[in-house]
Amino acid sequence: MELLVVGSVAYDSVETAAGKRDDMLGGSATHFSLAAALFAKPGLVAVIGNDFREEDTTLLREHGVELSGLTTANGPTFRWGGRYHEDMNGRDTLFTQLNVFESFQPRLEPIHQDASLVFLANIHPGLQQQVLDQVKSPGFVALDTMNLWIDIAKEDLTRVLQSVDGLFINDEEIRQLTGRRALVKAATDVQQLGVELVVVKRGEHGAIVFHGEDRFYVPAFPVDEVVDPTGAGDSFAGGFMGYLHQAGDVSNTTIRRAAVVGTIVASFCVEDFGTDRVSTLGMNEVRERYEAFEELVRFEPLKL
Amino acid sequence: MELLVVGSVAYDSVETAAGKRDDMLGGSATHFSLAAALFAKPGLVAVIGNDFREEDTTLLREHGVELSGLTTANGPTFRWGGRYHEDMNGRDTLFTQLNVFESFQPRLEPIHQDASLVFLANIHPGLQQQVLDQVKSPGFVALDTMNLWIDIAKEDLTRVLQSVDGLFINDEEIRQLTGRRALVKAATDVQQLGVELVVVKRGEHGAIVFHGEDRFYVPAFPVDEVVDPTGAGDSFAGGFMGYLHQAGDVSNTTIRRAAVVGTIVASFCVEDFGTDRVSTLGMNEVRERYEAFEELVRFEPLKL
Repeated sequence: MELLVVGSVAYDSVETAAGKRDDMLGGSATHFSLAAALFAKPGLVAVIGNDFREEDTTLLREHGVELSGLTTANGPTFRWGGRYHEDMNGRDTLFTQLNVFESFQPRLEPIHQDASLVFLANIHPGLQQQVLDQVKSPGFVALDTMNLWIDIAKEDLTRVLQSVDGLFINDEEIRQLTGRRALVKAATDVQQLGVELVVVKRGEHGAIVFHGEDRFYVPAFPVDEVVDPTGAGDSFAGGFMGYLHQAGDVSNTTIRRAAVVGTIVASFCVEDFGTDRVSTLGMNEVRERYEAFEELVRFEPLKL
Repeated sequence: MELLVVGSVAYDSVETAAGKRDDMLGGSATHFSLAAALFAKPGLVAVIGNDFREEDTTLLREHGVELSGLTTANGPTFRWGGRYHEDMNGRDTLFTQLNVFESFQPRLEPIHQDASLVFLANIHPGLQQQVLDQVKSPGFVALDTMNLWIDIAKEDLTRVLQSVDGLFINDEEIRQLTGRRALVKAATDVQQLGVELVVVKRGEHGAIVFHGEDRFYVPAFPVDEVVDPTGAGDSFAGGFMGYLHQAGDVSNTTIRRAAVVGTIVASFCVEDFGTDRVSTLGMNEVRERYEAFEELVRFEPLKL
């Protein structure tokens, strides 16, 4: 076990312009794991309730997700409900039931303590720190966060940022975190905390990757129809970190490829509800779409 | 004279987060001409009032803009005033004084009737049609438009679209024009009118170029500070059409390069108020930034 993710496993109820689904398998660590499982056998540290469906455990296991860190607590699984706006860019949270997640205290097995790549998905930065403190000598640690933690736990978040190598964050969140409107300045502020890699996600507009001095702009892959945006960011991160794991280095070239892989996996994610698309995704499809994407953004040197 | 633009020459009063300027040289045809003048000697067809400043005529002439189609009418020059929102994405129009523009009836000189490349900048589609009817056998005609004409003159706009080769339009406008939310579907609808090239401008998020079957995604070039977004779209189109003129063909390769050139010229435009930056812009700067842009979006084939 070399790639570890800690985060939420949830049941999501989602309404979009394309339809409505209740109690789908979801959660940040779920979406991350299934995407990363294209390239690695990620270890998943999370808590589920005793209502968690056997078929969902099976699905994760059959994708090669290592489940010794998935603990079952007494009570219902974390549930989230949301409704997306017509344009799929905004959403309203309808309910958040933390349930067993409320008292989640991640404790790592020895196998997880030796992880070399770690992704701290979107949970309270205090919990992220607690996980990080248990990993012995990680090669590369990245985290995701959200506006809620910037609001209520900014100090904790700033502290954990000082010990990680990468941050995945969306444009509005990094503006909120740094108080800077210009993304380049905001990312530079975060890098000055010691975070080498800052990935600013911009939804349908793609992502900007700041890695040391290197800057990389990647548009989103255009899909015919966005069915459900839930999990896009975690699928992006899962594809990204999974690819890093497989490549075995963090050169600029690898980081850029990883960002494109993340873009591609996220583009599949949004084409169906929940995990439906990524859980049937094959590497050939990723490779084909990567090539289509190369063609979509390619241009020749200037000839005058 | 082979590249012709018809549109507005105006005095703009603009407020942005970076400051406030009154009565700056502006207008769609002005911004287009100065950008296109990097590559060609564009002919400008427009009307100005008798208050038009000698120094502004001089500026255009010294940039190689051909002014025999710039007529002076009795009355004040077209004036527009606007205030940009803090984030520079939205703006409020404070006033629009059509003045001499109200009775503008473009009549082309023989030299303009022979134009091979024509850009119909953002004016009433009826006027665009009137210009087009006077050009003998243009090789390539493109037009720009705005929400106002889609609201009040959609029939005229649809008619003129049926006789042009290219449309430059922003994302919200093409959605309004076609009633389609998905940009790919919206662009396909416009192409079915016979418009081979559809360039969907997305402001700080770049542009999508649909050319026949070819699709090209180009992000915006990130500038340190946006000072004034006015004219960005027209500078984009000016760089684009100017480059087409110089290249002498409309292959996919040329169209993609033209879109990057347009992106680069627009990125300079927004770095200062009005025409201040583009009017001092040199080809070396364009070339350098084109190369920086190549580096910003480059990635290698997937290695697994």
